[in-house]
Amino acid sequence: MFDRDRIRGIIPPLATPLTISGEVDGLGMARLVEHVLGAGVHGVFVLGSTGEFPFLTARQRAAVVEAAVDAVAGRVPVIAGISAVGTQEAIKLGSAAAAAGADVVIVTPPYFGRMAMPQAWIERHILAVADAVDLPLMLYNVPPLINDIDPPTIERLATHERIVGMKDSAQLVHLQDVLFRTRGSGFRVLAGLEYHVVAALLVGAHGSTPSPANLIPRLYVDLYDATMAGDVEAALLLQERVNRFSDRLDEIPSWASTVKAALSLMGICGPTTAAPLPTLTGEEMAIVRDHLAANGLLA
Amino acid sequence: MFDRDRIRGIIPPLATPLTISGEVDGLGMARLVEHVLGAGVHGVFVLGSTGEFPFLTARQRAAVVEAAVDAVAGRVPVIAGISAVGTQEAIKLGSAAAAAGADVVIVTPPYFGRMAMPQAWIERHILAVADAVDLPLMLYNVPPLINDIDPPTIERLATHERIVGMKDSAQLVHLQDVLFRTRGSGFRVLAGLEYHVVAALLVGAHGSTPSPANLIPRLYVDLYDATMAGDVEAALLLQERVNRFSDRLDEIPSWASTVKAALSLMGICGPTTAAPLPTLTGEEMAIVRDHLAANGLLA
Amino acid sequence: MFDRDRIRGIIPPLATPLTISGEVDGLGMARLVEHVLGAGVHGVFVLGSTGEFPFLTARQRAAVVEAAVDAVAGRVPVIAGISAVGTQEAIKLGSAAAAAGADVVIVTPPYFGRMAMPQAWIERHILAVADAVDLPLMLYNVPPLINDIDPPTIERLATHERIVGMKDSAQLVHLQDVLFRTRGSGFRVLAGLEYHVVAALLVGAHGSTPSPANLIPRLYVDLYDATMAGDVEAALLLQERVNRFSDRLDEIPSWASTVKAALSLMGICGPTTAAPLPTLTGEEMAIVRDHLAANGLLA
Amino acid sequence: MFDRDRIRGIIPPLATPLTISGEVDGLGMARLVEHVLGAGVHGVFVLGSTGEFPFLTARQRAAVVEAAVDAVAGRVPVIAGISAVGTQEAIKLGSAAAAAGADVVIVTPPYFGRMAMPQAWIERHILAVADAVDLPLMLYNVPPLINDIDPPTIERLATHERIVGMKDSAQLVHLQDVLFRTRGSGFRVLAGLEYHVVAALLVGAHGSTPSPANLIPRLYVDLYDATMAGDVEAALLLQERVNRFSDRLDEIPSWASTVKAALSLMGICGPTTAAPLPTLTGEEMAIVRDHLAANGLLA
Repeated sequence: MFDRDRIRGIIPPLATPLTISGEVDGLGMARLVEHVLGAGVHGVFVLGSTGEFPFLTARQRAAVVEAAVDAVAGRVPVIAGISAVGTQEAIKLGSAAAAAGADVVIVTPPYFGRMAMPQAWIERHILAVADAVDLPLMLYNVPPLINDIDPPTIERLATHERIVGMKDSAQLVHLQDVLFRTRGSGFRVLAGLEYHVVAALLVGAHGSTPSPANLIPRLYVDLYDATMAGDVEAALLLQERVNRFSDRLDEIPSWASTVKAALSLMGICGPTTAAPLPTLTGEEMAIVRDHLAANGLLA
Repeated sequence: MFDRDRIRGIIPPLATPLTISGEVDGLGMARLVEHVLGAGVHGVFVLGSTGEFPFLTARQRAAVVEAAVDAVAGRVPVIAGISAVGTQEAIKLGSAAAAAGADVVIVTPPYFGRMAMPQAWIERHILAVADAVDLPLMLYNVPPLINDIDPPTIERLATHERIVGMKDSAQLVHLQDVLFRTRGSGFRVLAGLEYHVVAALLVGAHGSTPSPANLIPRLYVDLYDATMAGDVEAALLLQERVNRFSDRLDEIPSWASTVKAALSLMGICGPTTAAPLPTLTGEEMAIVRDHLAANGLLA
Repeated sequence: MFDRDRIRGIIPPLATPLTISGEVDGLGMARLVEHVLGAGVHGVFVLGSTGEFPFLTARQRAAVVEAAVDAVAGRVPVIAGISAVGTQEAIKLGSAAAAAGADVVIVTPPYFGRMAMPQAWIERHILAVADAVDLPLMLYNVPPLINDIDPPTIERLATHERIVGMKDSAQLVHLQDVLFRTRGSGFRVLAGLEYHVVAALLVGAHGSTPSPANLIPRLYVDLYDATMAGDVEAALLLQERVNRFSDRLDEIPSWASTVKAALSLMGICGPTTAAPLPTLTGEEMAIVRDHLAANGLLA
Repeated sequence: MFDRDRIRGIIPPLATPLTISGEVDGLGMARLVEHVLGAGVHGVFVLGSTGEFPFLTARQRAAVVEAAVDAVAGRVPVIAGISAVGTQEAIKLGSAAAAAGADVVIVTPPYFGRMAMPQAWIERHILAVADAVDLPLMLYNVPPLINDIDPPTIERLATHERIVGMKDSAQLVHLQDVLFRTRGSGFRVLAGLEYHVVAALLVGAHGSTPSPANLIPRLYVDLYDATMAGDVEAALLLQERVNRFSDRLDEIPSWASTVKAALSLMGICGPTTAAPLPTLTGEEMAIVRDHLAANGLLA
């Protein structure tokens, strides 16, 4: 049986390295995995929004999971995103992720543009996936991008034996309410918002999935360690530092493209993204290069 | 070469009949097609949001197009939705729709939850689809559900030889601006909002895709004929009547499920929907039944 | 008794001329009134949002009504805005407007930032004003800026003997629904959105309150006349022309400041606005100047 | 010179007791002040949104400040809201608050319905108020109700000698960023969101203005004391308890009316509110009564 305690600490939502022709780049994935594991992260999460999941085909997604599982080789858990617009598709993706060797799968509510999804639809969708996919399942709450999962819905879902935790990218009040409602149950909560990791840990979160940890994994591991060691002052100085790091990159419209561009400058993988995501303009690329250099990330 | 003038009049966005096990129901589709063609509609549009497209798999979508093409048998044009979250998927769906015999394909902007899509991404996505799919292409603008396509973007896209028109579900000011910008070019504009069909026709729209025309196709054909004949007073009385018809059904949360429920009561197809869309509760079903009866739609 | 038929045609929502020290400028108001009446408008509306009402004190607002009433001297109706955040304040403003000689008062729902106002609160607010202020009252619906008044609420309010009409700045579907619900009752509906005046008139609206008519009143009067004469083609060409005129000015952030700047270039009044509204930057002023010159509005 | 350190701890945003005829009820205010001071709060804040400020006239607002100043009699600081839609009005309210004896004034950005206010307008508005009103000034950031004040704007405003702090009702990420940007400057930050007081204090906030502290002031004082004493576990249990207390009351549409209703049941003041705010229905009143009883707040 899966040990829920393995879901803890810093678990970067990995970019998806692609070759120039748009195929999943296994070597790039291997380099990225070594980059973050070398910094001491506690797990990896593939096919989150940094990983461009919505724009990849089912075949590409299976290849991503395989590449990550191969590269990680059991050293830390591999959490695989299986989110889809419809329920049938999510179940198919879940079966493929299981076949590819993922340790845990994670799923958002169903989504279709800005369509409001009643909580009952969300609950039904997630239960159908949990029933059909034979792996531990995490919830992936990512408002305002996708319809929020309300804390009472989460409280009910957390009683399903396969539903072991969640990535909550909502604000602190929501994340804290989930912690209050699942206290003592073993349900694991990871802070999705990289801007409030320290505060989330202080109120009881078990870890975080900060997207900038693709680039600066060590700073987040240090922040996590400082917080868990009770050195809140040092942790908050690190929080400010990583927030400022993100602020600058966040001025560029496509976050996933920006992370990919930065990784290409760092020699980890190429800059190719899945359409309709853009590649960066020359001007944007210069901003990234200067920013990485200023932060000592270019050789 | 495709005659753009065939895109005109009332073109219902058809529901997608499904069997109890969730397969595409060809017989149901045939009955639905006869129901609307018998009322004089000028085309059919499959795999719009009434057709539950976001929640159907690629295989199901191809089956829908085939079933509609078979049933229509060339009597009117068949417009097939090929919208997807990512560009690769939309192109695949487009090729499948062409293979299945669609006359025209129609595509929304790429969509991923509430992610804002810059106009440049939308334009690149649609151009990639137009270049790759060998059929006349229409734009499908459906705010606020999916990111709006701005009139200047539409004006540029309309110069592509394969891009022949659009379904515009935006408000009248937007639709009118598209008409102003494409005047004289042969670009065809269909009003997607069923609540302002008369006004849209009066300012120059070429037709409409009213979803309630699955149930009451004749009223929309009459409304269209009255407007084109210059009898605005009669047309507005019909507009008020169809609006009141929709108001009542629109109180039920899932429109696609409601249309399906009504069609099942009318003996055209079963009530099954694609998850996560719900089937109606007993109470909701009673509202639909009463409403159809009050409007003389039950035998 | 007030003749409701006087509420018709083009009724510009006038800018509020202010002296450099921020006092209401009676001479400027007189020039502005002659400018629009000389073009044939059918009424004037002071203290709409173009008139900067939210940022003026009660004393200033009374002075605006007095100045307009003096300048108009009975030639056309003077409609005076009395909108306020709270009910007591709106009633006070209404009494002052009556004392200052307004023919009609007009009031929005109560507003406080983005606070959602239930329809019952809006209805209670407007009824309290109608009961307390001894003048014909119009509703002022201006979404999304202020909470929408729903058509059923309007239908009920329209039965109050003092409530004679509305300015509806909502989209056409809403305005049309108000017309459907008040058909035959004498309730007067003015289109607030200047971008769809022709369409609104075609579905039965009685006139419009286009803000750009401060600058180009004749074009709107011509558009109105063409529409009422049944020359829809000519009317739509005028609609396109005035829309393009507005598009350019609308690129500047503060509409009220932009109208004031244009009026100052046209020699009608000074450019002073009420804080926190800005005055235009030099660059913005140059855009306005070029645009007015290109449209033949500078001597 | 004002000692900024006095702005700390629990500072309830007081309800505004009104007589049946709508006048400010000085005796009610005195009882409310004793109620909260008796529980150990560290200040009072009048004319926040719980105090119905947007719906009170200038005369009423002055009376509220006078009543609070009289009742408090110097025991703790009195912070008085002077927010208005326009700049002139805010300055007038500020002068009146100074004359009435407030210790500190607090002001939101200018607001007019949902009008987006550029940061430059907000900054100009607040600087104009700070320059004109001779009292220490706090910023009042209350998104999404009123346009957010961005952290860089706050950072600049905090250098004005009269601007001493803020009430930040934004989410934790925003509040934390303000703390990062004003570290070491003496700028005081109070958490406006009562749901995350512990977390806000842990990342450096100086206190909080929890609205439910009108009813349960002692619980918030205990929560503050536990947090400051480093007993995070106890503090979070209190946070959960007060959050559940609020959750139930928050189901009733008008928060200010609900607080007033509860205070009337507790014998502190009458239930009258300023229109358009409603008084509670009988059913809503029963919910409040049961909830207060269940929490031991009724004698």
